[in-house]
Amino acid sequence: MKRIDLKEAAQLLRAQDDFLLLCHAYPDGDTLGSAAALCLALRDMGKRAYVRCGHEVPDKFLPYVGDCFQPQGTGETIVALDVADEKLLGPLQAQFGGRVELCIDHHMTHRPYAQQVCVVDAAANCENVYYVIEALGAQLTPAIADALFLGLSTDTGCFKYAGVTPQTHLIAARLIEAGANAGEINRQMFDTKTKTRTELERRVLDGMEYHFDDQCALVAITNEMRRSTGATDGDMDGISALPRMIEGVIVGITLRERTGGTYKASLRTHAPVNAAEICTRLGGGGHARAAGCELDGPLERAKEEILRVVKDALIACRD
Amino acid sequence: MKRIDLKEAAQLLRAQDDFLLLCHAYPDGDTLGSAAALCLALRDMGKRAYVRCGHEVPDKFLPYVGDCFQPQGTGETIVALDVADEKLLGPLQAQFGGRVELCIDHHMTHRPYAQQVCVVDAAANCENVYYVIEALGAQLTPAIADALFLGLSTDTGCFKYAGVTPQTHLIAARLIEAGANAGEINRQMFDTKTKTRTELERRVLDGMEYHFDDQCALVAITNEMRRSTGATDGDMDGISALPRMIEGVIVGITLRERTGGTYKASLRTHAPVNAAEICTRLGGGGHARAAGCELDGPLERAKEEILRVVKDALIACRD
Repeated sequence: MKRIDLKEAAQLLRAQDDFLLLCHAYPDGDTLGSAAALCLALRDMGKRAYVRCGHEVPDKFLPYVGDCFQPQGTGETIVALDVADEKLLGPLQAQFGGRVELCIDHHMTHRPYAQQVCVVDAAANCENVYYVIEALGAQLTPAIADALFLGLSTDTGCFKYAGVTPQTHLIAARLIEAGANAGEINRQMFDTKTKTRTELERRVLDGMEYHFDDQCALVAITNEMRRSTGATDGDMDGISALPRMIEGVIVGITLRERTGGTYKASLRTHAPVNAAEICTRLGGGGHARAAGCELDGPLERAKEEILRVVKDALIACRD
Repeated sequence: MKRIDLKEAAQLLRAQDDFLLLCHAYPDGDTLGSAAALCLALRDMGKRAYVRCGHEVPDKFLPYVGDCFQPQGTGETIVALDVADEKLLGPLQAQFGGRVELCIDHHMTHRPYAQQVCVVDAAANCENVYYVIEALGAQLTPAIADALFLGLSTDTGCFKYAGVTPQTHLIAARLIEAGANAGEINRQMFDTKTKTRTELERRVLDGMEYHFDDQCALVAITNEMRRSTGATDGDMDGISALPRMIEGVIVGITLRERTGGTYKASLRTHAPVNAAEICTRLGGGGHARAAGCELDGPLERAKEEILRVVKDALIACRD
């Protein structure tokens, strides 16, 4: 394992000709935008490149990555984008585990698994990919600008989060100059909800629980709720931001039932509570303000387990 | 009346020493941010400056403008910020109408009333004020950066709207560099809902109706709902944007019961349906994408009346 910077990552990419780019499981706009932008840039340089992901690409992202996506795609050089841990390759881990040559990521909790590890702190991994594409000397086409803007915008809550830096805005400015359909992408990502999603949100709000003097809000999405509303993975997007939005809430918890009966916990916190610390104690990880972990069912047990650790964190902050 | 550019506006400001800066009625983040930032810059240059507004400043904006605000403030040179029409001075029009020396505004629908009119197209008027402050040679202090960021962010839906340009992002980058608390301002403006608002939203979603092959979504907020949730006017903010957010919905209708038993209808549409045309037929008015009108109760009657006109508009668009 070797740690490299963004320019060295570009050098490595320039030296190869046949790529398979991997996204993380349950793909979001940043992993897809990172992979699609890099794929398009490599193709524009005359190289062969495809994108794969362990899970289906949600419909709303398809216009920005569709052309790159190839469910059975292969490639000599395997590159992972925005994949903080080999486990996060999900269903692709069995096939590609131990074979990733380069990983470009922005998670400071990254657990190295690639031969060349390029991890740079940024609000979105698409910022890193922007610099790699610049270092490659590839042209910033409107399609590449769209893919990068998708990641930039979705991973920052439309430039809302505290992690946004001057660099984030400078890159956004250049992407719009390069022809990114910023307004339209933002409308589709942030101002459009499916009917199903609206129904799911209603049911989630119906079941919202408050704990610890309303400093913690918790919602659960069970498989029954998904079945009865017909919600897809895409409909779940951003649901985990809801509990923390409530005034006075410092820790927002979303529990999502998995098919095996376990629960995926997504934590969103406000300072000073560290979401990554809480989730690390439960075998997960993430960022200071957003992190996740896997909990055993049934629901009541999962709730108890995470609330116990959250309670400790809230008490520790008070001291 | 003379039209001037931003540099000439700065020259005019530099030549004077005693200012009263006016905001528009029912103030938003952009008019307040524009006035507060300019006020602080003028004070830093050793001049006297105060800000006034015809209506109370909402609590959430106070931390960014509080120090400049002076309900009885006076000044020799009167400057209006983000005030597109003299009428929009509201309660201050009687006192200051015909006396405004300079207006700095970004509305292309501006109706000139000041002696010197500086209207420049921009996503937020704070972009214009940023350039004026730069031309004045005043230092971009953290407090000025906060005030400008407040306007930039609130008037663009946190950089979401189609009117956002590369310039908007470049200015955001410089404001963050200058010390603007961007993450915190965005959190307060966009990611904070009261518990009451959350409960109101749940009840609104519970009652959402779909009409005309789901091209129209309608919600109603009754006085009973407001009473039982304890919702304030602030809690209603933005509720009328909810129905149109749903995928496939072209016309979103929000009916809000008034104390006299009538209903205030707020329409939000997507092209090609013209909201103003619909509301004009019912005695109201507005913009192409957002308009309103007043309907007689009871609720079922108000619904029938507006749905009849909406149906006609949807049929007309199909042809």
